[in-house]
Amino acid sequence: MNRILRINMTDRTFVVEPLPDRYRYLGGRAITSQIVADEVPPTCDALGPSNKLVWAPGLLSGTTVSSTSRVSVGCKSPLTGTIKESNAGGETGLLLAQLGYRAVIVEGAAEPGSWWVLVIDWDEVRFVEAPKSLIGAGGYATAAELFAQYGGVRQCGMALIGPAGELKMNVAGIVNTDRDGRASRLNARGGVGAVMGSKSLKAVVVMGNKRNPVSHVDEMRWKEGARQYMRMLREHPATSERYPQLGTAGTLEVVNKLGGLPTRNFSAGRFEAADQIAGIRMREIILERGGEGRTTHSCMTGCAIQCSNIFPDRMGREVASSMEFETNGLWGSNLGIADLDAVARFTYLCNDLGVDTIEAGGTMGIFMEAGLIQWGDASAVEHILDHDLRSGTPLGRLAGSGAGIAGRALGVVRVPVVKNQTISAYDPRAIKGNGVTYCTSPQGADHTAGNTIGMKVDHLDPAGKVALSREVQLVATILDMLGYCTFARGLTDINPETFSTMFNAYMGTTWSWKDLRQLALSVIGTERGFNRRAGFGAAHDRLPEWMRKEPLPPHNAVFDVDNEGLDSIWEC
Amino acid sequence: MNRILRINMTDRTFVVEPLPDRYRYLGGRAITSQIVADEVPPTCDALGPSNKLVWAPGLLSGTTVSSTSRVSVGCKSPLTGTIKESNAGGETGLLLAQLGYRAVIVEGAAEPGSWWVLVIDWDEVRFVEAPKSLIGAGGYATAAELFAQYGGVRQCGMALIGPAGELKMNVAGIVNTDRDGRASRLNARGGVGAVMGSKSLKAVVVMGNKRNPVSHVDEMRWKEGARQYMRMLREHPATSERYPQLGTAGTLEVVNKLGGLPTRNFSAGRFEAADQIAGIRMREIILERGGEGRTTHSCMTGCAIQCSNIFPDRMGREVASSMEFETNGLWGSNLGIADLDAVARFTYLCNDLGVDTIEAGGTMGIFMEAGLIQWGDASAVEHILDHDLRSGTPLGRLAGSGAGIAGRALGVVRVPVVKNQTISAYDPRAIKGNGVTYCTSPQGADHTAGNTIGMKVDHLDPAGKVALSREVQLVATILDMLGYCTFARGLTDINPETFSTMFNAYMGTTWSWKDLRQLALSVIGTERGFNRRAGFGAAHDRLPEWMRKEPLPPHNAVFDVDNEGLDSIWEC
Repeated sequence: MNRILRINMTDRTFVVEPLPDRYRYLGGRAITSQIVADEVPPTCDALGPSNKLVWAPGLLSGTTVSSTSRVSVGCKSPLTGTIKESNAGGETGLLLAQLGYRAVIVEGAAEPGSWWVLVIDWDEVRFVEAPKSLIGAGGYATAAELFAQYGGVRQCGMALIGPAGELKMNVAGIVNTDRDGRASRLNARGGVGAVMGSKSLKAVVVMGNKRNPVSHVDEMRWKEGARQYMRMLREHPATSERYPQLGTAGTLEVVNKLGGLPTRNFSAGRFEAADQIAGIRMREIILERGGEGRTTHSCMTGCAIQCSNIFPDRMGREVASSMEFETNGLWGSNLGIADLDAVARFTYLCNDLGVDTIEAGGTMGIFMEAGLIQWGDASAVEHILDHDLRSGTPLGRLAGSGAGIAGRALGVVRVPVVKNQTISAYDPRAIKGNGVTYCTSPQGADHTAGNTIGMKVDHLDPAGKVALSREVQLVATILDMLGYCTFARGLTDINPETFSTMFNAYMGTTWSWKDLRQLALSVIGTERGFNRRAGFGAAHDRLPEWMRKEPLPPHNAVFDVDNEGLDSIWEC
Repeated sequence: MNRILRINMTDRTFVVEPLPDRYRYLGGRAITSQIVADEVPPTCDALGPSNKLVWAPGLLSGTTVSSTSRVSVGCKSPLTGTIKESNAGGETGLLLAQLGYRAVIVEGAAEPGSWWVLVIDWDEVRFVEAPKSLIGAGGYATAAELFAQYGGVRQCGMALIGPAGELKMNVAGIVNTDRDGRASRLNARGGVGAVMGSKSLKAVVVMGNKRNPVSHVDEMRWKEGARQYMRMLREHPATSERYPQLGTAGTLEVVNKLGGLPTRNFSAGRFEAADQIAGIRMREIILERGGEGRTTHSCMTGCAIQCSNIFPDRMGREVASSMEFETNGLWGSNLGIADLDAVARFTYLCNDLGVDTIEAGGTMGIFMEAGLIQWGDASAVEHILDHDLRSGTPLGRLAGSGAGIAGRALGVVRVPVVKNQTISAYDPRAIKGNGVTYCTSPQGADHTAGNTIGMKVDHLDPAGKVALSREVQLVATILDMLGYCTFARGLTDINPETFSTMFNAYMGTTWSWKDLRQLALSVIGTERGFNRRAGFGAAHDRLPEWMRKEPLPPHNAVFDVDNEGLDSIWEC
């Protein structure tokens, strides 16, 4: 069953619509971006009622195949002003797919100050006024209360906002519960949580009655594709060893070696205490402490990679799940903090507040650069998160506004943003392919839109990075459409046709990988069209000037991919 | 003598250059914009060393003709990201012209944390490290100290920044001393004071040795033009009566009647207590209190209009000079404050801090809309200015960031900005010609770029407002080039050729008004070219979406000039 659920928050009504034929092949990012481009005025106020918030599971989400149940959220971003797709794990994608929804479109806005919980079930949608206990509540408490009310983790999953989303902050993401019910998997980037807040929507509970196990058209081909895919997954060193053992944190050592690890607000690319926040150290600590700690854990049902983890305190009690490279980088080296216990607390707090750790970590770096707090002062950072950001003090509002706005407010020039969005934990002066992605992705400075770190190239050399970024961006788009986790990317190097086989088996088509690539190109074209109408062009596809001028130790590299290359990336 | 002074703040050197021939006819805004377009990379960091700050007197500045000694400051704006020209009275224009400088270009940046005073004299330029007493000092104290050092108000004048500029705030202007030495005439808009702060330049002292009285080529024509001009000035009811008697504050009643006076953050266009902050009331109070109060006062030597005033307290002691319509509107009705004594204190504080009252007043409106302070709470506002903004607390940083950034940080949608710049005190839903100017001026939402309020038209009717705004924008550009105060605009309705006569007498040319209009068109074209390269296009030439949707009482008008009209305004 393929249907679209359209929710009107202004009058709290809904309608179930058949999937338009032209959306037939579109899942995940492809369908959220198409709907936003079709229905949202590009120059609208991003936090006004004309913006729409679109959820979509990937095309293969809800199937039994590993790592396919990612969920996309699309809207016009209040952070960047561009179109945005923000991608997450957790259970929401699976559950929406199993209810037969290819997309859920939330329109309009309820009265500011009122707060609503949306309950989506097979044959009904309910608008429930949020009890007072949920208003201002963190993600963990919100999830606990709603699970108690709606039957527990076996009966439902949810997407919700924490205090950051209620306060309509640029750092606000949408928090999805994981398979254990933990409010910890974020559609983090671009302020999508602020858009949810602007609609006065506190949480969406998706009931998991699973009446409609998602199924494919061609059983034989499906089995064949799934078999190939699982074999690659089990054989590839990243998906079979590195991610399960070290999680994404394993990347930290690699990036530090390459001299691209953000250190003290991007003033250096190598952190003297990188080993203290690296994947190996994290694993050691988790194993040493035992208790509730897990080095290997899955964020969604049916994932065989299990890159997630549970970080325990000295008593073995869970502090946070999951510790990730981006967080260890932007809240560790980027702040001069060489302490995984501190980063674990930040991770927990960001999850509970519903905050994008990349954007907020970049903002803390600006705070330190401006002298508001001292480099390395973990307790000051914790206080800003838990007190100021949570309650929305003026300092907390600044912290919640993202690095671009905080930098401007504090008079800082060294601000690591593209299209007002904080760069991920790969300094583009050392990892130049990612720099190309930051510039040219319609999504702004988001590594998940096209991360070149896994490619065997000289990352310092600008040559060939435009083409490299383009191809990786296209693969990322395909994976985001289909619902695959980005960690399936490595497998596309081995046998991309496995992915088209599964697409074909599911859809009953005869597409090649090249056809999928063509569809991805058109998705990016749709997104760029929206952005163009919103006022974005070549001048915005740039790193900030200082990144072309200020050398990054230890390689003293600057970003030197030429603008002509950046501007021609999509002429292909 | 026509020369350009080029200052390098990085190594504290200077060079005097002959005026390039292609700049021959360019004064004021025309030359600042041309130099910025020629020399500043459009995508540079506005607060980085690649930006330049350009001062230029008008072409006729320094002559004996009334109201011609305005001074333009140009740069890439850190507030808008566009090219910016910000215009002011005071003595700086006159003094620079009398030193023979058609432009002063400040390049590079001194070490952050160091602060410098630049002393410009006939045959020398000195870089003097600012004494500690000046660092963080308000404009009044800074001016007093520097006047004491450099010979008093008969020997020099100055352009300086207050704490806001040192803190590189978006609301920071550059403060010029008036003929009495008062630090009170601002190049207010666009954050030009932040650019001065980014170069570590606290003040520019311009010595007034007047060795080179500015003179014209054709004596007979000059006398003829000046005579015509002065006759019109004495006969026109605005320049001979309204401005001298009521100052710009006389406009408040007009705009309130038209239903376009910003009231409680642009939620209404008529203020129930408008009479309490109007020009007539202001005049009554000043006359009643006597003492140091003046209803009529000139901001620069040789001005016959004398729209300025000095507002006294109940004891007759000066509080502020000058009280203006924009300030009475944005800090009075816009904040629900019906108290001229309060607005006078705000005016004084903004002058002393070096703050654009339009941008900062708009920001206070956002603070009230967000509930940070209560509507009408003048003492809370005063505390934010005098404590938070002055010392740069997080709240003060937000207050200094402008309405656009504060609105985003506080999650407010009703934010009255175009290109991130606060709209002046004419709500564009009721004064539609000004709405067209806000949208289409390369300067952003700045009424001085083309104020249609003086035109006898139906301001509520969208018809014809594109053409009207265009013509008024062109006249404003001509006046800004020549150095005339904007209040000469009314005279161009009577006999525009008076202005070409004076231009011709000065330059030895035979241009018509139409030729001047053509030059103004090319100035706007140059500015738009810079903006295009900086990433601005039609999508940015828009009012915020809510101004097209939210009706403005009492007329319940929305902005309804069509986009096609806006986009075709410069196709002429």
